[in-house]
Amino acid sequence: MESGGKLWAGRFGDQRSIDPVMERFNSSISYDKRLCYVDILGSKAYATALFKAGLLDQVECADICHGLATIEDEWRSETFRINPSDEDVHSANERRLKELIGSAGGKLHTGRSRNDQVATDLRLWLRQEIDQSLDGFLVQIIQVLIERAQDEMDILLPGYTHLQRAQPIRWSHYLCSYAWSLWSDWQRLMQLRDRVNVMPLGSGALAGNPFPIDRHYLSDLMGFDSITPNSLLGVSDRDFVVEFLSWASILSSHLSRLAEDLIIYSTKEFNFVTIADAYSTGSSLMPQKRNPDGLELIRAKAGRIFGQMAGFSMVLKGLPSAYNKDLQEDKEALFDVVDNLFCTLQVAAGILSTLKVNAEKTLGALSSDMLATDLAYHLVRRGVPFRDAHATVGKIVAMAENQHKDIAALTLEDLQSISSVFDDPSVTNIWNYEHSVEQYQVTGGTSRRAVQKQIDDLKALLEFRKGSTSTAL
Amino acid sequence: MESGGKLWAGRFGDQRSIDPVMERFNSSISYDKRLCYVDILGSKAYATALFKAGLLDQVECADICHGLATIEDEWRSETFRINPSDEDVHSANERRLKELIGSAGGKLHTGRSRNDQVATDLRLWLRQEIDQSLDGFLVQIIQVLIERAQDEMDILLPGYTHLQRAQPIRWSHYLCSYAWSLWSDWQRLMQLRDRVNVMPLGSGALAGNPFPIDRHYLSDLMGFDSITPNSLLGVSDRDFVVEFLSWASILSSHLSRLAEDLIIYSTKEFNFVTIADAYSTGSSLMPQKRNPDGLELIRAKAGRIFGQMAGFSMVLKGLPSAYNKDLQEDKEALFDVVDNLFCTLQVAAGILSTLKVNAEKTLGALSSDMLATDLAYHLVRRGVPFRDAHATVGKIVAMAENQHKDIAALTLEDLQSISSVFDDPSVTNIWNYEHSVEQYQVTGGTSRRAVQKQIDDLKALLEFRKGSTSTAL
Amino acid sequence: MESGGKLWAGRFGDQRSIDPVMERFNSSISYDKRLCYVDILGSKAYATALFKAGLLDQVECADICHGLATIEDEWRSETFRINPSDEDVHSANERRLKELIGSAGGKLHTGRSRNDQVATDLRLWLRQEIDQSLDGFLVQIIQVLIERAQDEMDILLPGYTHLQRAQPIRWSHYLCSYAWSLWSDWQRLMQLRDRVNVMPLGSGALAGNPFPIDRHYLSDLMGFDSITPNSLLGVSDRDFVVEFLSWASILSSHLSRLAEDLIIYSTKEFNFVTIADAYSTGSSLMPQKRNPDGLELIRAKAGRIFGQMAGFSMVLKGLPSAYNKDLQEDKEALFDVVDNLFCTLQVAAGILSTLKVNAEKTLGALSSDMLATDLAYHLVRRGVPFRDAHATVGKIVAMAENQHKDIAALTLEDLQSISSVFDDPSVTNIWNYEHSVEQYQVTGGTSRRAVQKQIDDLKALLEFRKGSTSTAL
Amino acid sequence: MESGGKLWAGRFGDQRSIDPVMERFNSSISYDKRLCYVDILGSKAYATALFKAGLLDQVECADICHGLATIEDEWRSETFRINPSDEDVHSANERRLKELIGSAGGKLHTGRSRNDQVATDLRLWLRQEIDQSLDGFLVQIIQVLIERAQDEMDILLPGYTHLQRAQPIRWSHYLCSYAWSLWSDWQRLMQLRDRVNVMPLGSGALAGNPFPIDRHYLSDLMGFDSITPNSLLGVSDRDFVVEFLSWASILSSHLSRLAEDLIIYSTKEFNFVTIADAYSTGSSLMPQKRNPDGLELIRAKAGRIFGQMAGFSMVLKGLPSAYNKDLQEDKEALFDVVDNLFCTLQVAAGILSTLKVNAEKTLGALSSDMLATDLAYHLVRRGVPFRDAHATVGKIVAMAENQHKDIAALTLEDLQSISSVFDDPSVTNIWNYEHSVEQYQVTGGTSRRAVQKQIDDLKALLEFRKGSTSTAL
Repeated sequence: MESGGKLWAGRFGDQRSIDPVMERFNSSISYDKRLCYVDILGSKAYATALFKAGLLDQVECADICHGLATIEDEWRSETFRINPSDEDVHSANERRLKELIGSAGGKLHTGRSRNDQVATDLRLWLRQEIDQSLDGFLVQIIQVLIERAQDEMDILLPGYTHLQRAQPIRWSHYLCSYAWSLWSDWQRLMQLRDRVNVMPLGSGALAGNPFPIDRHYLSDLMGFDSITPNSLLGVSDRDFVVEFLSWASILSSHLSRLAEDLIIYSTKEFNFVTIADAYSTGSSLMPQKRNPDGLELIRAKAGRIFGQMAGFSMVLKGLPSAYNKDLQEDKEALFDVVDNLFCTLQVAAGILSTLKVNAEKTLGALSSDMLATDLAYHLVRRGVPFRDAHATVGKIVAMAENQHKDIAALTLEDLQSISSVFDDPSVTNIWNYEHSVEQYQVTGGTSRRAVQKQIDDLKALLEFRKGSTSTAL
Repeated sequence: MESGGKLWAGRFGDQRSIDPVMERFNSSISYDKRLCYVDILGSKAYATALFKAGLLDQVECADICHGLATIEDEWRSETFRINPSDEDVHSANERRLKELIGSAGGKLHTGRSRNDQVATDLRLWLRQEIDQSLDGFLVQIIQVLIERAQDEMDILLPGYTHLQRAQPIRWSHYLCSYAWSLWSDWQRLMQLRDRVNVMPLGSGALAGNPFPIDRHYLSDLMGFDSITPNSLLGVSDRDFVVEFLSWASILSSHLSRLAEDLIIYSTKEFNFVTIADAYSTGSSLMPQKRNPDGLELIRAKAGRIFGQMAGFSMVLKGLPSAYNKDLQEDKEALFDVVDNLFCTLQVAAGILSTLKVNAEKTLGALSSDMLATDLAYHLVRRGVPFRDAHATVGKIVAMAENQHKDIAALTLEDLQSISSVFDDPSVTNIWNYEHSVEQYQVTGGTSRRAVQKQIDDLKALLEFRKGSTSTAL
Repeated sequence: MESGGKLWAGRFGDQRSIDPVMERFNSSISYDKRLCYVDILGSKAYATALFKAGLLDQVECADICHGLATIEDEWRSETFRINPSDEDVHSANERRLKELIGSAGGKLHTGRSRNDQVATDLRLWLRQEIDQSLDGFLVQIIQVLIERAQDEMDILLPGYTHLQRAQPIRWSHYLCSYAWSLWSDWQRLMQLRDRVNVMPLGSGALAGNPFPIDRHYLSDLMGFDSITPNSLLGVSDRDFVVEFLSWASILSSHLSRLAEDLIIYSTKEFNFVTIADAYSTGSSLMPQKRNPDGLELIRAKAGRIFGQMAGFSMVLKGLPSAYNKDLQEDKEALFDVVDNLFCTLQVAAGILSTLKVNAEKTLGALSSDMLATDLAYHLVRRGVPFRDAHATVGKIVAMAENQHKDIAALTLEDLQSISSVFDDPSVTNIWNYEHSVEQYQVTGGTSRRAVQKQIDDLKALLEFRKGSTSTAL
Repeated sequence: MESGGKLWAGRFGDQRSIDPVMERFNSSISYDKRLCYVDILGSKAYATALFKAGLLDQVECADICHGLATIEDEWRSETFRINPSDEDVHSANERRLKELIGSAGGKLHTGRSRNDQVATDLRLWLRQEIDQSLDGFLVQIIQVLIERAQDEMDILLPGYTHLQRAQPIRWSHYLCSYAWSLWSDWQRLMQLRDRVNVMPLGSGALAGNPFPIDRHYLSDLMGFDSITPNSLLGVSDRDFVVEFLSWASILSSHLSRLAEDLIIYSTKEFNFVTIADAYSTGSSLMPQKRNPDGLELIRAKAGRIFGQMAGFSMVLKGLPSAYNKDLQEDKEALFDVVDNLFCTLQVAAGILSTLKVNAEKTLGALSSDMLATDLAYHLVRRGVPFRDAHATVGKIVAMAENQHKDIAALTLEDLQSISSVFDDPSVTNIWNYEHSVEQYQVTGGTSRRAVQKQIDDLKALLEFRKGSTSTAL
């Protein structure tokens, strides 16, 4: 078939030559070089396992491990030279190992394939990021929240529903609500860590490892908790990535809601909080402006992180079994999310730590009409069915409106003119915000005691965590 | 300001009258009536707790419970009449209760708000769906997979990577790979169930319950494992919904991959499996056609379920603290996903259970070139470094191509002409697919023993589950 | 192979019998019955085209059209009986037609397949929804916005960036910004309508129509603008669905931003606007509350609609060519989005139309520090380089702060002490919000003239639209 | 309040000092430096407009333009030095301009804000990428498809629905179906380009430009088609980004479907096409393997690109009016999608151009049972109602099955034994694949003439495009 002058089979020419765009499309080293250390860690462990299985002798094993140590030094000192032909970090490390120790390097790959190697590396890397950073960053925010909650227990502010003032609550109660959300994020993280920390090495290309490698020994060498139970899955399962990305999306959604609150609370109109200069931008010309850039970025990252999860979820949909090149998309999504979480979590901790609460403003935003419900509760406590109490108070609210009075300014006589149950002058005690919040004594309520219990419980959980992770890590 | 003849403040008229479109927009009873039973369950428990707290007397409590039982009967017998003014199932049940027992019904709402009531109901409902359906449906598929895996251990087929034939594997190994995926879905489901099964009741509108309700007692009455620790969170936390939807998305993605495999395997070209008529559609005119509709729908549902998760995730992004009406979107997303999972899981079990494997076709798809790696392994076992073995076999492959021969047809002499390590006539044993798969003896491999271990392990886990859930449920 | 007592090939039993869950999974009539009228429209047109092609005689054609008219009446009068075996609306209509007119009904399907029929119906339906509803609803909101903008030109409020007060703007300018967004939504809608209104009929199952049907004639009969150019695409292309869903997602995102603004503006703290009772919920007990439910739902729908788009986008990813059953997911996504847009658009129009602006509050939210930039502009107009002017004003701001004075309270002498350019007493004119907004005379600015131009331009565009659609429709 | 030793207000220390993580979080220069040239272009135009408005004199304008030209050279020669304090490319260019030409540089920013500057730059950049790359890359693929379609008109293959062989079609018809999809992508691209190519400059920070800048003149200088009509929108509208990302998602979904087809067609089992070595990876050990990496990556990118769209869509949901820092997320999403489209489109063109079709395999995949429908058509042409013809052919199919014969092997007598309408020996002509495809003569069908028309129409459209873009660009 002729193609003279045509695009097809013409411009793209000789089928044998590589297309440079394809080469770039295919290459992953520009981003997967971040896996250099875990790749070396995995290779050292594999060499040791090969030695144990009699597939390497002691000298070969030592040479390999020594060569790998040299490569590690090169990466650390930024002297590792990436060749144009190194399409990924695994082949770069392998190529360099052979340069350093010669053909013995060739034995390292006995029974190992790129497929189980890359899956192992990525799991090691993610475990490391969880253990060395995410775990701690998350706990740090929780600590800031409960420390503030402890110190600022006296501050009252309106609790909102539908962004309308509803009932007075403690600022500490508000802070604790986010501490609990983040604590459940921490719990989820620990549960998914168990599914990250499973070793696929020994799955070969797809059918398993044909040599008598002791996978449990190998797993122990790298600190894995367990091993993948099926080689097809070992090379193709990216659930740990999707689950992590979904986790990150939920976490960042929590932070987006916190950010939204604080952006609104820091408007001139609310003026409940002042964001530290370190996390906002001002303008010498518009002195009234203090843009909460840090919070806005935190809010935005919920979108970005969700997007990475959504994108990789779509990559997986309908993929045929075992390894497909599509899986190469796992790494950039994961790296981007981890990097963005790092900033997000640290900036959130910083903002929460340096925020100033304008306690007189939050108090000033309370008004006695927010206590009308408490008047109904007063009646309920004196035996009136709730719906009747509700109706009675409705009349009182109307009376106040008709008299153009604040409801708290009504006299005992006024109240009695509506219902004779108001026979106790102490009823006027309810026009007190502190009294109002102190009603909520049940677990999870906004009274001082109930909030203190939350703080204590959270502290105990953080203590417990220290114990559990010190053994785990 | 005049508006004569104008749209604004004109056509939409009197501000006090309700807009019928708004009424429809706001109303949820068309779908949340599914919560009718759990709403009644929750109300009975709450009445009991009010009685214990002295806020109801025994007669009132009995009246309420009796009235609720009547309402339950009405729902079951489909005689419950929804009024146009019932905007949701909670107000419908409340309205009906008052019709049945009079004003005592008004006491039921003492300290309870719609906000904590709806959150409680939705958690009860989801727990019920998990326990009564999803758990079992998921286990059923796993059982089908491992039963088939046990029975069809002898069947070999090509293992694919990149959808290209790579190495022979056992069909049972393939089936187990999905059984393991689904098992990890089951594990995740049990972990998230713990976070679903937490009682928000007692959170009031947002600040807590102002009466001395015993929330732990209340929680026990409804079979909750624990209670929400913070009232703001109690009314606004929908993590359990997002986490469930994310779980469902991952599960359905697994099934989409299985469906894709089977769609491809059931093409005329592959012809590895035949889908039962019950799950496919044919054509009297095109007898060659057997459309795998069931599998295609399973594949598609991964998209739909993901979409519900994505949509509700976006709803939550950047929402201000505590309850916002936006949260009303939780229910339709959840119902749609549960309903679709029901069909998906049951149809998947049905298809897997009735599928015919064309074992001679799967075997016929194997070819000796898929065993070239095994020839390299042979050399490695005799001490040749892997990369050298690899190079040697590359030459042998080339020799076979040059001689237009199947590689398995090369003689021992041919092999020896390339490498003298081929000194053992038993080398020709490698041209045997059974021999090939039997090399993969390590945990997770495709040898008979390694697959049997997977089956045994999965069975043991399912046994263990029965023990654990019998106590849990 | 034995299966005694086992799940597989056991419980699911006889392969020939249909699985009832599968039947439900497969059936679409519960939702696609909405297509009943367009299905009949399409069938009438096809009968006419068959007649023209000589494949029906006049009597047959008349019988078919008469039968279809009867079916249409049955649907309208809700007397159409759906049989359990009717899996979709197309087969229900076909079944009924045969009942009504006997075997001549069988000729209607000559050369037509379910694949091109369903694609045709869905396009007809969507075009109808666009023409009869979406187009008008969208225009209605724009009209409300520009009518208000015209009437409320005098109202000033702070323009915000980062939700921080930045510079005074006209309320009408604010309203126009959304009118323009919605106008561009309208433009996009008209462009995508062109791609919806393309007739796939005549594509057969996938290869085309083997009879001499005049597709252009057929297209004209149904009011299509053009015909699909390739039969494979005709049956499998769902771009018009995805594009519509993407459009709806962008539109609903605009409305979510408007809703967010108004939710914030209607807080007690801002108090810029009051939402009509028809679109909010109050509480007799908490008179301070006026929950903007309508706005919250509008905001939430942006998530839901996005989710439908995301879900269906994932369905399509990686689908093999031509018709796959997965495409059945198109309808529920589309119906849900159209239904939700209906409510969203109408409620948005209603809210905007009945909203009260508290003009004294919006004015009161302005402060002279928001005019510091204007002082710099004053200097620029007198020849000072902008960055120098900026520095000068920075000093003045600092002076005011040091003197604990409002910047507007500084005297001419104060200003002159910083810069001698302040030689004109008229400089104090800048401490006037009206003066400030009137500076922005360029196209798109917030001055009266520039806003009037926006209103006039929008009105002209709406006029132009009337002309264009009257011909188009 | 004391904080000794605590995290909050402790570790994060002095509020005035910047948090280095926040600095990194906030900074965008690492990626927005790609905008350096369009930023300079925009600044030159703005200087010219300031000169025209009398806000710069000729010398100042010339100095600025000369300085900007120097900066452009520095970027091109990679000698531009980014300072640590340059948080974005706009401030970097501005800082450098002042270094080069002194304080006159300060006048460049008269009336311009970062908000309208960055929106202008991003639109210029995207327009450039569309015009210089995407447009051409897209057209290139279409050209390859229609050139192949022209040359390979004789090749027949099975048309699939549900991935089951349905009816014979022309390979060229198949190719054209994708050409048409891509052509509609091109049309959409041109329509959205109109919405990209709108100038926001002159919107200031949010309220407009307070100086008499001629925005139309400015727009012409930069080749914009029109100007934004409202300044609030000008600074905050990112519809052009979302719309582009949605477009990219639809386009990449098309390519994912094409990739899926070709991955399946290039399996050993189908063996319809052979992917060129340049776009696949092989293995010296597994000579049977030719992994279609390029196609798998194309398929995967549909997920990634969708993810970027989904992420940024979520960023926008519920954002308050006018500029918010969240919008900073626009750039990385856009850059990532454009970069990935570049590779995807070029690699797709390369693969399609170098693909080998194994015509004997595609022909061999046809079988006479695929022609049973044609037998029914034969009867229809002789006046038999379609449903009767369908029934008759059903019997013939059964007869062939019972006789274990290929349907094409039935004799005329066999056929006549079922129906006397088979009175013409020419009926056996239908057992011919060429004859079968030639039936589909209607527009959009798979006959030679109908496919040729598609090719001619597509060529004409490409010709028309050349005309239209030569004026447009």
